[in-house]
Amino acid sequence: MTAISDTKTMQAYVLHGAKDIRLEQAPLPVLSPDEVLVKVRAAGICGSDLHYYAHGKCGNFIPTEPFILGHEFAGEIVAAGDEKNASLVGTRVAVDPSRPCGKCKLCRQGRYNLCPDMVYFGSASVVPPSAGCFAEYVAAPARNCAPLPDDFEYAWGALLEPLSVAAHAVQRSGGVSGKSVLITGGGTIGQMIQLVATAFGATKVVVSDVKSFAREFAIKQGATATLDPTSPDCAAQAAEIAPDGFEVVFEAAGVGAALNQAFALCAKGATLVQVGTLPDGTEIPANALLTRELQYIGSWRFANVFERVIELVVSGRIDVRPLITRRYPFEQFQEAIVDATGADVIKVQIENVS
Amino acid sequence: MTAISDTKTMQAYVLHGAKDIRLEQAPLPVLSPDEVLVKVRAAGICGSDLHYYAHGKCGNFIPTEPFILGHEFAGEIVAAGDEKNASLVGTRVAVDPSRPCGKCKLCRQGRYNLCPDMVYFGSASVVPPSAGCFAEYVAAPARNCAPLPDDFEYAWGALLEPLSVAAHAVQRSGGVSGKSVLITGGGTIGQMIQLVATAFGATKVVVSDVKSFAREFAIKQGATATLDPTSPDCAAQAAEIAPDGFEVVFEAAGVGAALNQAFALCAKGATLVQVGTLPDGTEIPANALLTRELQYIGSWRFANVFERVIELVVSGRIDVRPLITRRYPFEQFQEAIVDATGADVIKVQIENVS
Amino acid sequence: MTAISDTKTMQAYVLHGAKDIRLEQAPLPVLSPDEVLVKVRAAGICGSDLHYYAHGKCGNFIPTEPFILGHEFAGEIVAAGDEKNASLVGTRVAVDPSRPCGKCKLCRQGRYNLCPDMVYFGSASVVPPSAGCFAEYVAAPARNCAPLPDDFEYAWGALLEPLSVAAHAVQRSGGVSGKSVLITGGGTIGQMIQLVATAFGATKVVVSDVKSFAREFAIKQGATATLDPTSPDCAAQAAEIAPDGFEVVFEAAGVGAALNQAFALCAKGATLVQVGTLPDGTEIPANALLTRELQYIGSWRFANVFERVIELVVSGRIDVRPLITRRYPFEQFQEAIVDATGADVIKVQIENVS
Amino acid sequence: MTAISDTKTMQAYVLHGAKDIRLEQAPLPVLSPDEVLVKVRAAGICGSDLHYYAHGKCGNFIPTEPFILGHEFAGEIVAAGDEKNASLVGTRVAVDPSRPCGKCKLCRQGRYNLCPDMVYFGSASVVPPSAGCFAEYVAAPARNCAPLPDDFEYAWGALLEPLSVAAHAVQRSGGVSGKSVLITGGGTIGQMIQLVATAFGATKVVVSDVKSFAREFAIKQGATATLDPTSPDCAAQAAEIAPDGFEVVFEAAGVGAALNQAFALCAKGATLVQVGTLPDGTEIPANALLTRELQYIGSWRFANVFERVIELVVSGRIDVRPLITRRYPFEQFQEAIVDATGADVIKVQIENVS
Repeated sequence: MTAISDTKTMQAYVLHGAKDIRLEQAPLPVLSPDEVLVKVRAAGICGSDLHYYAHGKCGNFIPTEPFILGHEFAGEIVAAGDEKNASLVGTRVAVDPSRPCGKCKLCRQGRYNLCPDMVYFGSASVVPPSAGCFAEYVAAPARNCAPLPDDFEYAWGALLEPLSVAAHAVQRSGGVSGKSVLITGGGTIGQMIQLVATAFGATKVVVSDVKSFAREFAIKQGATATLDPTSPDCAAQAAEIAPDGFEVVFEAAGVGAALNQAFALCAKGATLVQVGTLPDGTEIPANALLTRELQYIGSWRFANVFERVIELVVSGRIDVRPLITRRYPFEQFQEAIVDATGADVIKVQIENVS
Repeated sequence: MTAISDTKTMQAYVLHGAKDIRLEQAPLPVLSPDEVLVKVRAAGICGSDLHYYAHGKCGNFIPTEPFILGHEFAGEIVAAGDEKNASLVGTRVAVDPSRPCGKCKLCRQGRYNLCPDMVYFGSASVVPPSAGCFAEYVAAPARNCAPLPDDFEYAWGALLEPLSVAAHAVQRSGGVSGKSVLITGGGTIGQMIQLVATAFGATKVVVSDVKSFAREFAIKQGATATLDPTSPDCAAQAAEIAPDGFEVVFEAAGVGAALNQAFALCAKGATLVQVGTLPDGTEIPANALLTRELQYIGSWRFANVFERVIELVVSGRIDVRPLITRRYPFEQFQEAIVDATGADVIKVQIENVS
Repeated sequence: MTAISDTKTMQAYVLHGAKDIRLEQAPLPVLSPDEVLVKVRAAGICGSDLHYYAHGKCGNFIPTEPFILGHEFAGEIVAAGDEKNASLVGTRVAVDPSRPCGKCKLCRQGRYNLCPDMVYFGSASVVPPSAGCFAEYVAAPARNCAPLPDDFEYAWGALLEPLSVAAHAVQRSGGVSGKSVLITGGGTIGQMIQLVATAFGATKVVVSDVKSFAREFAIKQGATATLDPTSPDCAAQAAEIAPDGFEVVFEAAGVGAALNQAFALCAKGATLVQVGTLPDGTEIPANALLTRELQYIGSWRFANVFERVIELVVSGRIDVRPLITRRYPFEQFQEAIVDATGADVIKVQIENVS
Repeated sequence: MTAISDTKTMQAYVLHGAKDIRLEQAPLPVLSPDEVLVKVRAAGICGSDLHYYAHGKCGNFIPTEPFILGHEFAGEIVAAGDEKNASLVGTRVAVDPSRPCGKCKLCRQGRYNLCPDMVYFGSASVVPPSAGCFAEYVAAPARNCAPLPDDFEYAWGALLEPLSVAAHAVQRSGGVSGKSVLITGGGTIGQMIQLVATAFGATKVVVSDVKSFAREFAIKQGATATLDPTSPDCAAQAAEIAPDGFEVVFEAAGVGAALNQAFALCAKGATLVQVGTLPDGTEIPANALLTRELQYIGSWRFANVFERVIELVVSGRIDVRPLITRRYPFEQFQEAIVDATGADVIKVQIENVS
């Protein structure tokens, strides 16, 4: 390692169980030759972080030991594991948290997001859990670090991971350019899909959400219209906007009722992309899938879009600034995570400016 | 019309209600300029015909008046509605039963099987119901009549419609060449998908069915292996054949349990095609769809494959002969339809050799 | 017909040969039942019109008799061929000039732009040539007439045909969202592809043209950058913008040198779309196509995009107004067509406000 | 290494220049941890080997020092570079010669055949040239070694690389199932494409070649028909087989005249795949590409098909045995390579049974 050799520990927020995240002194990561040390400057709190925080686990991912959460981040490279990467020190970067094996059949096919040996940052999907970014420093493969232009803020860099999830979902749909689009669920990912779909030239982008905050936010960000699925006029309003139904639908609510709304409002031959987490055993209108010849497609994490998403922001196609609801200093992480669980929030971030 | 001007009526089997099909004298069809009159020489009994026969209706399709059933047929052109088609008289043909409008958005996009104004033969999907082929004669658009080579039997021609359904399902999957394939449900369509998938170079084609007749038939027709979904060894056997799961799965049973088996046995990133009719409200493992990034796709009737299917039979890629379980003369239609409802049947056909 | 029954003739510009277009009294079109009569209010002059004007023919299309040119137009429906369309009278419409047969194999596959029996407006591709829109009235199938919103100007409607050509080319590319795009040739279609590619979220859209007018126009319309192919710095500038090469390239110049530039500047695995007309015998870097595994794709007219393009303009994704260089009254057609042949022109239109 | 530690050298055929291949004692390869040592049991001579032999180089690939040729091979694993692979010793394997970096953008997208850092076996595309398989032993990554079933001969294993090239070309075409196919050029790859296209259910597979040996071989292997491009009846014969033209064409001759034949005989909307090597500057009918809306696609080496090809042979979909024209013992390599340059040869192989 080429720098900060005198520091041996760092501060980190460690998950010990439900509602139990502790600020601790953790060992500074040891770098392998391909890795660099990134000083975290901005980190976003994801819905999965909130699941870990609320329940001590996230779905089937149950931590075998305490670990550092967080996988949405940007920062500065402060050390390199190998001389060949020494010149990267000082670079401002956003970090793609995907660390697939690169060798298995799925990796070779370009679907590395499905790699069975994927090591994501801040996740209990592997044993032991992998360390995340709610810490002072993170070790990351050099090739996962995408340099940021000078006027590209760290906070925007920390949005690239969820934006990539949204862009991947749009990519999985087969494309939205020139099409009518419905998004069920106006949470963080739903709102980001709205931005991506609009940037990609969907001609109608409608967001459906029970919360007025989500609907109002969508309109402010350029959605064509919104729907309140609890309104008796919902179907009529949808039919006015898209008389033949929506050609592409993104289910980003993770709610069975929203999925059934998605099926009901889509056009013949439409594509529905599942982005939100639904339980096994969810009921679907299978006869509609058959006789209307739909494509119902899962979208999981992302692949091959991280750099593209940077370009979308750099080129001005997407303005990410309104997505950041509030920022907290590193020291106020506990307040931040409580805030993030509240209603009327798109994205809460942690800053580390010291 | 250029011939048989002296006959004004024909014999036809008319559906009047559940279990009530009557042999009647029906008026000979009047031809429009683009149509020809086809003397039916072979006609297959489809599962949907059996639904009409058993219940007097088929799903949401409820006849508003008595009509002639049947949509799988081949025969001889005996008259033309216009002089320009007069030269077709005498031609042996199979008839594509698809009569879409040709003008709507879906037709223009090449997905004419979804045309809202589709008039299929022998169907109560339109009002009044359209006449079918369980009769001496049928009026069909000249362009729907595909000429048959001399040594191509009428009986094979009457198999082209269900074979097209199977081929369309394979096409909807994105292709099976070089892939591992599972088919849940070894009924007529499932067996035909097996033939098509094998002809298209799937390297493993496995049929799953609770009936030993279906499994044995599949093996005789060249399936790589079969599975009994009720066997406790089923999952282990599947894993031995396709350790990473099947890359393409066709659900042709129309049973929720089979669909869930399909999801359980498919590979990450796999495509599942729904071919059998499932009720709305069917439960699916939605979390698997998401995290394994599956494509679950409906396949409805067919488009753009009828002529291709003829070529598959002509070129010897598919041998259709074993699919015909039994043939009955036109006069024994009542016996035939009862036989077709029995177990251990692939396809029952009506012949009219007079 | 339901109106203007007292007028039997109309004014029209008829092509008699090279440089010989005459204003004549022509018979008012007779409507078939599916057609409506459109009073032309705005009509654009296309490059193919200029070819007919300059040479009396267009490539292989040689008129067998005098005919009315023009295929880019919008207007008002003033009569209907059948009572069922009578309610359309008074509607402001843009007209899709595609009249394919709707029945052949290519039409059924959704590639109706390749229909061998296509009858385009104002074209000598059929015998006798089909009448075009440089006239007071045009007969058009009702289903080809797309209603325009109240604040959608006729002049914009007359741009939908070339915009559809551009949108089709983008569609043929497999999509440009999030990708880097190069367009060789900044004529009318090249500039329109730039607008569509930007609207569809391409992150870099570069236009290459020898004419400074074209480069400046592209920059004003939002292109990321431009290239002068005659500049010695061209390749270096391209490499700075797209270090790995452009992922999608549109060859809209119809010049062999531009095509070779397109090959030289594209990325490994890139897609090149041919939009401009090149002669047979054009030389290509075939070894690059092979070893860089490119896709080189023709794009001809358009299919299934006309309504989408209206939505792109209505939704504000594309601002078509700057594309109209100058408008001439119907009476000044001769001045207009001379102007259109000049340099520094994007689109010249004819207006008929009387 | 876990075995044969007493042998330090091996016999190998080393290319020193044009017509100058010498049998030498070469050092036994040193294994990295991920590699195994494969004792070569069968090796095929490729057209590129013949280019190196004839000219001392292959196109742009000019060796910077002597090296061992050959990249089509199968053999037995006799040692492992790491204990975790020790259990592989004794396994009969075919070796995928693709060693891409696994990390670059193209690798991540699944197009690793385009990886700029690809190290292929026996190639001067890298500096220094990489060692090939015309030797007693080869070091190969363990994951590149595909186990062969017991009754799968080594000689067949040595055919998997060119078969993969053929299968990749078919994959690049978008699929041939149910379609009409033309192959221009009946050399080794052309004949293999014929086998793959037939196995994948193309309904018409026609091979065009000036050599009667190639045409006769194609018919024996199941081609529907053949064409002699020098015959005045060629176009008429083609039109009889495929009246609308061929839907998919593979140009495997690497001759400009064959490419122009390919364009002339293809259908509207067809896909042409370039497989043979053509010089830059080749003339194409660019106007046909445009107005017939063709896709002209390069196919380079292969990706993601090696294991699929094994399954095609194991499942009996492809019979590779007739492809092997002659086999020579390792000691007679010089005779073998001369034989391989002759006419009337599909594939010449080297055996090492000692």
